Amino acid sequence: MADETRKRIAIDMDEVLVDTLSQFIGEYNREFGECISKDHLSRRKLAEIIPADRRPRLRNYALAPGFFRDIPPMPGSTEVFAELRERYEVFIATAAMEFPTSFNEKYAWIKAHYPDFPDSHIVFCGDKGVLATDFLLDDSPRQLARFGGSPFLFSAPHNHDEHRFPRLDDWADVRRQFL
Amino acid sequence: MADETRKRIAIDMDEVLVDTLSQFIGEYNREFGECISKDHLSRRKLAEIIPADRRPRLRNYALAPGFFRDIPPMPGSTEVFAELRERYEVFIATAAMEFPTSFNEKYAWIKAHYPDFPDSHIVFCGDKGVLATDFLLDDSPRQLARFGGSPFLFSAPHNHDEHRFPRLDDWADVRRQFL
Repeated sequence: MADETRKRIAIDMDEVLVDTLSQFIGEYNREFGECISKDHLSRRKLAEIIPADRRPRLRNYALAPGFFRDIPPMPGSTEVFAELRERYEVFIATAAMEFPTSFNEKYAWIKAHYPDFPDSHIVFCGDKGVLATDFLLDDSPRQLARFGGSPFLFSAPHNHDEHRFPRLDDWADVRRQFL
Repeated sequence: MADETRKRIAIDMDEVLVDTLSQFIGEYNREFGECISKDHLSRRKLAEIIPADRRPRLRNYALAPGFFRDIPPMPGSTEVFAELRERYEVFIATAAMEFPTSFNEKYAWIKAHYPDFPDSHIVFCGDKGVLATDFLLDDSPRQLARFGGSPFLFSAPHNHDEHRFPRLDDWADVRRQFL
């Protein structure tokens, strides 16, 4: 076992550590000259509020070089993430298999935003049930349901009706829960 | 937790599922017109039996496009790996952070050799202590020491003097142990 006494927390990237939804909205607004913001979504997914014939474009955005590298951090995440690293053994756990370019771009994102984050604590995995951490912070109910430790749901428009897991609405909530 | 009653086994790629050492030797022989084989290594690392001024070349091989994509499977692995998948929930767990091109190439390797292997069960991680599987099959004593489940050491020239873990010499040994 690791020579490490701190509790271990795994943190998802998309929609938790990084604001993937804003990146999608930005690309969409740019292409179609719209001004959609997160507030317009309420509890709906972006794909649900745009014309059906434009929906396939969303996948194209994610496949374009740079999409995952240039995603902004989730508001409020940077400071709290740094604080978490002082108190916990932190892993970044993210799926990257759906979009082939995203391996290198997600890795580059982490290195750009947290240059001293250790490679050893970056995990690309499609099934978070494989993680042996104490906590998992994720926006995906499916992943949280498979996880063997204590799950925490990070709020996103798509998971508003999910009630099985303790919910954290934003990074201020993360701080209150873990720090 | 996963809705899965089979035991879970994580299998390393380099030097276990794939014959990375042979790939290094092949590149070296090609560049320098040598005929080194694994038998020449005995218990030594490749870097130890070649002239010191050529050692930096090894890292270059691993950085070259195609190196990780074209590695041959470890002898005897293909059939036993398929049998393991029938009896166990199998994860492929490999580090890829040291060589930037290796994310996509390792992923491509898996897809080429096991087209039906699920993305969800591919894990890129630098610290195998994060894996929540029952077993880990790896050539690295350092990784096995961090793992919380039952570790098995897959023999490689570099780990010959390691005695802390149950040892499996080849894929026939893997079959005897797990099937």
